Amino acid sequence: EKPAGPTATASSGGAGTRVMIIGGDGYCGWATALHLSARGYEVCIVDNLCRRQFDLTLGLDTLTPIATIHDRVRKWAEVSGKYISLQIGDICDWEFLSQAFTSFQPDHVVHFGEQRSAPYSMIDRQKAVFTQTNNVVGTLNVLFAIKELKPDCHLVKLGTMGEYGTPNIDIEEGYLTVTHNGRTDTLPYPKQGNSFYHLSKIHDSTNMLFTCKAWKVAATDLNQGVVYGVRTEETMADPLLINRYDYDGIFGTALNRFVVQAAVGHPLTVYGKGGQTRGFLDIRDTVRCIQIAVDNPAARGEMRVYNQFTEQFSVNQLAEIVGREGRKLGLDVVVQNVPNPRVEAEEHYYNAKHTKLVELGLQPHLLADSMIDSLLEFAVQYRDRVRMELIKPAVDWRKTGVKVNTMGAAVAK
Amino acid sequence: EKPAGPTATASSGGAGTRVMIIGGDGYCGWATALHLSARGYEVCIVDNLCRRQFDLTLGLDTLTPIATIHDRVRKWAEVSGKYISLQIGDICDWEFLSQAFTSFQPDHVVHFGEQRSAPYSMIDRQKAVFTQTNNVVGTLNVLFAIKELKPDCHLVKLGTMGEYGTPNIDIEEGYLTVTHNGRTDTLPYPKQGNSFYHLSKIHDSTNMLFTCKAWKVAATDLNQGVVYGVRTEETMADPLLINRYDYDGIFGTALNRFVVQAAVGHPLTVYGKGGQTRGFLDIRDTVRCIQIAVDNPAARGEMRVYNQFTEQFSVNQLAEIVGREGRKLGLDVVVQNVPNPRVEAEEHYYNAKHTKLVELGLQPHLLADSMIDSLLEFAVQYRDRVRMELIKPAVDWRKTGVKVNTMGAAVAK
Ligand SMILES: NC(=O)c1ccc[n+]([C@@H]2O[C@H](COP(=O)([O-])OP(=O)(O)OC[C@H]3O[C@@H](n4cnc5c(N)ncnc54)[C@H](O)[C@@H]3O)[C@@H](O)[C@H]2O)c1
Ligand SMILES: NC(=O)c1ccc[n+]([C@@H]2O[C@H](COP(=O)([O-])OP(=O)(O)OC[C@H]3O[C@@H](n4cnc5c(N)ncnc54)[C@H](O)[C@@H]3O)[C@@H](O)[C@H]2O)c1
Repeated sequence: EKPAGPTATASSGGAGTRVMIIGGDGYCGWATALHLSARGYEVCIVDNLCRRQFDLTLGLDTLTPIATIHDRVRKWAEVSGKYISLQIGDICDWEFLSQAFTSFQPDHVVHFGEQRSAPYSMIDRQKAVFTQTNNVVGTLNVLFAIKELKPDCHLVKLGTMGEYGTPNIDIEEGYLTVTHNGRTDTLPYPKQGNSFYHLSKIHDSTNMLFTCKAWKVAATDLNQGVVYGVRTEETMADPLLINRYDYDGIFGTALNRFVVQAAVGHPLTVYGKGGQTRGFLDIRDTVRCIQIAVDNPAARGEMRVYNQFTEQFSVNQLAEIVGREGRKLGLDVVVQNVPNPRVEAEEHYYNAKHTKLVELGLQPHLLADSMIDSLLEFAVQYRDRVRMELIKPAVDWRKTGVKVNTMGAAVAK
Repeated sequence: EKPAGPTATASSGGAGTRVMIIGGDGYCGWATALHLSARGYEVCIVDNLCRRQFDLTLGLDTLTPIATIHDRVRKWAEVSGKYISLQIGDICDWEFLSQAFTSFQPDHVVHFGEQRSAPYSMIDRQKAVFTQTNNVVGTLNVLFAIKELKPDCHLVKLGTMGEYGTPNIDIEEGYLTVTHNGRTDTLPYPKQGNSFYHLSKIHDSTNMLFTCKAWKVAATDLNQGVVYGVRTEETMADPLLINRYDYDGIFGTALNRFVVQAAVGHPLTVYGKGGQTRGFLDIRDTVRCIQIAVDNPAARGEMRVYNQFTEQFSVNQLAEIVGREGRKLGLDVVVQNVPNPRVEAEEHYYNAKHTKLVELGLQPHLLADSMIDSLLEFAVQYRDRVRMELIKPAVDWRKTGVKVNTMGAAVAK
């Protein structure tokens, strides 16, 4: 008979493989750390907790009440019997990162540790510069750490589907074969970022490709779609393990905002025409994709690119699904179009490939199925914690200026 | 009758147009500042003199003895009657840059102010991070300065042909029209950098494109080839105005090294097979291209990309031309193949477009004609200043590590 608890159904495929999870206190990182730990991987979380500091500074908060990382890891040991080691520090600080590498000796580094909000990167000059410096220098340091301290360590780096922008041709997985004036080459897919955040991820990918060639780094670049959902098996094992749920105008995605708006009876605020189409995936698929990437590592010198999402939706389609599923729970859902604070195409062609992870065994969850159990039920459960003033669009792309905005950005508008 | 001096033959086309030249103490920037000043443009040089500091730190020196920027500007006022204003400071320092912008109120910013050596960026981790931070943050600050302080200011940004790498298809000017699965779009040309320096320029271009769209910045990105030559009309007007000539293994180009090697009777050291092919141009064409870009500015919201070079040569062809022209001066020139310290294709297809600047009036100088009067004669004249130990390849792409290399890099190897 199987033992009870969150590691019960988990295979022991990890078998001691050492995985460093940079950004392991964040949304994707925390769920991934537990998923891998439950399956026998030796996990070390590296995080400087800057994400929590952003919330403090801007007056934001997750809908779900999250424990400190220290309490999370302690509780995990209690419920699972597995120990996750913790290194609190900034990967832009070479002294810290090299020490973390040397002591943990990772076989894989899963790198989630970046400033990941487009609106945050557009608040003011300081935050634009911070976002690009934090992300680019952090990733450079990780690449140097691999080259110098553990050359056979496989890098799994989180990119974003947003790196591709919205070209008028199909989006391929990382590379595009081009025939031009009678000659053919396979080149990095042309990238067009729509915020200083998205641009920072493009810079990362460009840097990584070079180090794969010059230093024979083994890297997997996961261009992830928008992740949704609170529920993973492990994060639901105890209230102290619950994952974060961001719904504010800066860190929340359109989908997360819609769900919260539905729960509290506020119209869903669609930016502009609502034809903006993106790739999406369930957090339960994120953790599975990372495991697949780790179990099937890139070869030395290879920069492998996977598009990590399972379904495409336009903003209008999201609003429709939230409305339909919300009504099943007795919620009264209406839609309201508001001026788009971003500069982006509101109606465009979008067809992005995403077959490689499925070929490696990913079995996608579908948004329509997850809407109630992993989104709406949490929003309803925690609706007393909702602060409506945080949902409004807080950052206007055209107004990004040099004046420093701290708390003012989210609270005063 | 025309007045004597370096502004004699210069047209007065500038007519008070205000041009800020960031990096105006550098090789291209100094020649450009004088070229525009002579033609009636109101010039302000912004530079933090870090290029001179690199020489001091690494124990390097220009072949031609250059005066301080203060003496240069003073002497220029004396010989031309034109005043160039000087702002010494770091464009990564927003307080400084914003003040420089506010006080000078540029109509055009010509941005040369970056760490521009590929080998320097490959010395160690610190210099890789410095190169990307200095270049990316500096350019971000310039973009913010334009948006906030002078939105109609035209940005002329120096990129490099090296951003394109060596694809197996023709290189276009900035954009590539792609037909894929039956649909067509014009996208940013796919970029592949071969050093942290080249990568930093790709990052700049990617950032600029976004701000042109989001903020309606008017920008011209000049993907410049390798610049050669010492002579421009204005820098030759007085010994205190002479331009720098870098021939060392870190800041010198292959061509500059060959010329110095020919002058002192050392074999020309070709890296690897010598099939590496690049675009080249005379410094007299650089200054002219900048003037053309300034006189024909991009429109608001437009990111215009020109490939700024006039001829393509392989390393072997360069060695051949130096040999042929050197023999005319009685020099005995032989070639020696040395191991390539870089990771790069040594034999590859290369065909890069460069028609747009010619359409706007550029009349190219040719390397074969400039070899003697603008290169070999200077190398012979200053051959007593040559320090042969500086010419050796000082930085190995595969060995770029985290150990800090300062003077050691150039001197001790
Ligand atoms: N959440 C999404 O929908 C989504 C979509 C596409 C891509 N991604 C990418 O996935 C990754 C994780 O996203 P997330 O939603 O979990 O973000 P998150 O902000 O919740 O987590 C990121 C974590 O990294 C840490 N961090 C940031 N900079 C660091 C530094 N310099 N040193 C150490 N730690 C640092 C933060 O403290 C935080 O805990 C990011 O790289 C993001 O770009 C996320
Ligand atoms: N020289 C070439 O062959 C060549 C070829 C292609 C492109 N380019 C580009 O043209 C530009 C100029 O090249 P160059 O050969 O004249 O280089 P250079 O090093 O001689 O000049 C650059 C100048 O910029 C200054 N600078 C650097 N960072 C600065 C900062 N943060 N703040 C203020 N000033 C700063 C330096 O002090 C220096 O005087 C560079 O952007 C380079 O990438 C040059």
